[in-house]
Amino acid sequence: MPGPIITLTTDFGHRDHYVAAMKGVIVTLCPQALLIDISHEIRPQAVRQAGYLLASAARYFPPGTVHLAVVDPGVGTGRRPIAVGTARAIYVGPDNGLFSLVMGREPVQWAVHLTNPRYHLAEVSATFHGRDIFAPAAAHLACGADPHEMGESLPPASLLVTGSLQIYEEGAGPWEARVLHIDRFGNMITDFQVSDPQSRLVVTVAGERIAQLRHTFADVEVGGLVAYVGSSGLLEIAVRQGSAAATLGSGLDSPVHIREAA
Amino acid sequence: MPGPIITLTTDFGHRDHYVAAMKGVIVTLCPQALLIDISHEIRPQAVRQAGYLLASAARYFPPGTVHLAVVDPGVGTGRRPIAVGTARAIYVGPDNGLFSLVMGREPVQWAVHLTNPRYHLAEVSATFHGRDIFAPAAAHLACGADPHEMGESLPPASLLVTGSLQIYEEGAGPWEARVLHIDRFGNMITDFQVSDPQSRLVVTVAGERIAQLRHTFADVEVGGLVAYVGSSGLLEIAVRQGSAAATLGSGLDSPVHIREAA
Amino acid sequence: MPGPIITLTTDFGHRDHYVAAMKGVIVTLCPQALLIDISHEIRPQAVRQAGYLLASAARYFPPGTVHLAVVDPGVGTGRRPIAVGTARAIYVGPDNGLFSLVMGREPVQWAVHLTNPRYHLAEVSATFHGRDIFAPAAAHLACGADPHEMGESLPPASLLVTGSLQIYEEGAGPWEARVLHIDRFGNMITDFQVSDPQSRLVVTVAGERIAQLRHTFADVEVGGLVAYVGSSGLLEIAVRQGSAAATLGSGLDSPVHIREAA
Repeated sequence: MPGPIITLTTDFGHRDHYVAAMKGVIVTLCPQALLIDISHEIRPQAVRQAGYLLASAARYFPPGTVHLAVVDPGVGTGRRPIAVGTARAIYVGPDNGLFSLVMGREPVQWAVHLTNPRYHLAEVSATFHGRDIFAPAAAHLACGADPHEMGESLPPASLLVTGSLQIYEEGAGPWEARVLHIDRFGNMITDFQVSDPQSRLVVTVAGERIAQLRHTFADVEVGGLVAYVGSSGLLEIAVRQGSAAATLGSGLDSPVHIREAA
Repeated sequence: MPGPIITLTTDFGHRDHYVAAMKGVIVTLCPQALLIDISHEIRPQAVRQAGYLLASAARYFPPGTVHLAVVDPGVGTGRRPIAVGTARAIYVGPDNGLFSLVMGREPVQWAVHLTNPRYHLAEVSATFHGRDIFAPAAAHLACGADPHEMGESLPPASLLVTGSLQIYEEGAGPWEARVLHIDRFGNMITDFQVSDPQSRLVVTVAGERIAQLRHTFADVEVGGLVAYVGSSGLLEIAVRQGSAAATLGSGLDSPVHIREAA
Repeated sequence: MPGPIITLTTDFGHRDHYVAAMKGVIVTLCPQALLIDISHEIRPQAVRQAGYLLASAARYFPPGTVHLAVVDPGVGTGRRPIAVGTARAIYVGPDNGLFSLVMGREPVQWAVHLTNPRYHLAEVSATFHGRDIFAPAAAHLACGADPHEMGESLPPASLLVTGSLQIYEEGAGPWEARVLHIDRFGNMITDFQVSDPQSRLVVTVAGERIAQLRHTFADVEVGGLVAYVGSSGLLEIAVRQGSAAATLGSGLDSPVHIREAA
């Protein structure tokens, strides 16, 4: 029988041993777990970018998956280590807004504050809760531990929610969206959700007017700027066979202006 | 019993959630699959480089492995999504020449056009066939689906073949080879195949004469340029403890001139 | 039953097919092995950095894990391919000092020189022993092969040991430590081991006096330099929410001066 799945999302990169130490802890406690990396190349401490990538990937994983995410600027301070259960999955990480997007789409069924030291490593360092608290929690949960043994219950409303999406509504606007993520190809993913890709929206970045929404980047000529609704349901800006971020000089959190065509 | 093996080769990089979304789709449909990454750092849209890396790695995998490869400049246009079966393995990806090298060495037994929507995700986006068409196909094939249920049979001769290798033949030449790949160490791998590493070939790059073929880069002094037949059977150019690509100012597709010593 | 674990540590990077070829060899010979990457982003040929990352991760893996490590500037020369068994794990790689740190902490029970061609690939290249000798050895060992069938026994004292740690001792010093690794965040990990994080040590790098040891980087203000004992028991230097290596202009092997406060 295939084992439980644990995904990993961190800002630890691929150079260091940090991710491997977490995986060693997990396979020690839950040897049958199947480990799948979502991303370890989150910009250091970019909680919102991590939340976006996690939410984008998580919807393609089977029910019951445990998603371990550690982008944790507050490690060593008072922020709470948590596990959150939804109808679809379990999320483990710091209570710093990382799970805002997934909690917006999957109602929370339970949440616990991971305080029980029996479910931590024997020694908990001040700087690496990913290994000492979050990895053991994910492993125990994947192997069937009762979350309520792992710490006090938390009211879902007490969990930190930050940086929610903006959602298109006909007749409303204009909107100022933000760049949530820039992918390897220089495509800019915004925090603006459009359910209907046919909407006649006009997008402006850095004073440069981008033609109206298209179906795909193949709808413009090579080198041309295009806005479209990407595979995540969010407005994206691309240059066909080029980098939109480089062309427009945009970075994470850059503003994107959107209005309905007159 | 160990599960079926699926390898992944893409130009998606490690920063984004794209590879993880594909893996989520795969483990949902074929939970016992063992997933192994070949490379996700293909230069964006470099089909020929991807074909080289795939062919180089594939020969070390056991028979029956499913190789999923997505370097797909034509996504959203008319290029065909295909699966190809050889005596040794199954290849899944776009019909854009990506499998030219492996098909040159492993005769094709069957090929199908992946058109049956029952084997796609419920919604197929315009921009991400890796997740919506290729990942489900690879998962179904690894778990034993009949490829002929997945779309129309294609005559092997109809599959796109591009950028084949040049093969050394005694008395022939001179040859103009091309740089197929530059590895992490700056070693340049060419598209020139030499079965006999003792051949007395003279190699010139960018006007710089490189000493004749050696057995290994340890045969020259530190900092010295050397040409040799690499572990893939292809002519490679290296600088001992340095970067040949940086020394010679070469990139992907740069020309390499080869002739037999007089 | 979960399979045996094999970790991989190399300087091969993620762009090339080298790591995948090794994994293909392993799953061919030992299909039930669970493969976990420690790092493939070791600076090319940085044996000591690799030894540090391997030692740091290895302690979190379960007993019996096989650790395969290939950072091998001497490939193609006379250095010995070895496997080393300790009370805790098995290490496979070149005899070039890579295992110095782990052997300093886990007494060696046996060591063999991997000379038996029955446990190599059929063809052994001059340049890629990772694939042709080390990967098969790791796979055979993980699947239960007798190491003494794989080559001649070696006296543990004959194994190369290089670059051991410096260990703090009260009343001794001053010490000149070296930078062993710089992590993704620009934190500098030194080769100076301090068992007692309360020690009143004064740390100087590049003429810049760093305040005494603190408990964690959260103990200084944003942008401030801090020295502390990291999660590996080694002295680390960091800038809170910044890069110590960039601030101090330090690289691998840069000196770090340490003395006890008067």
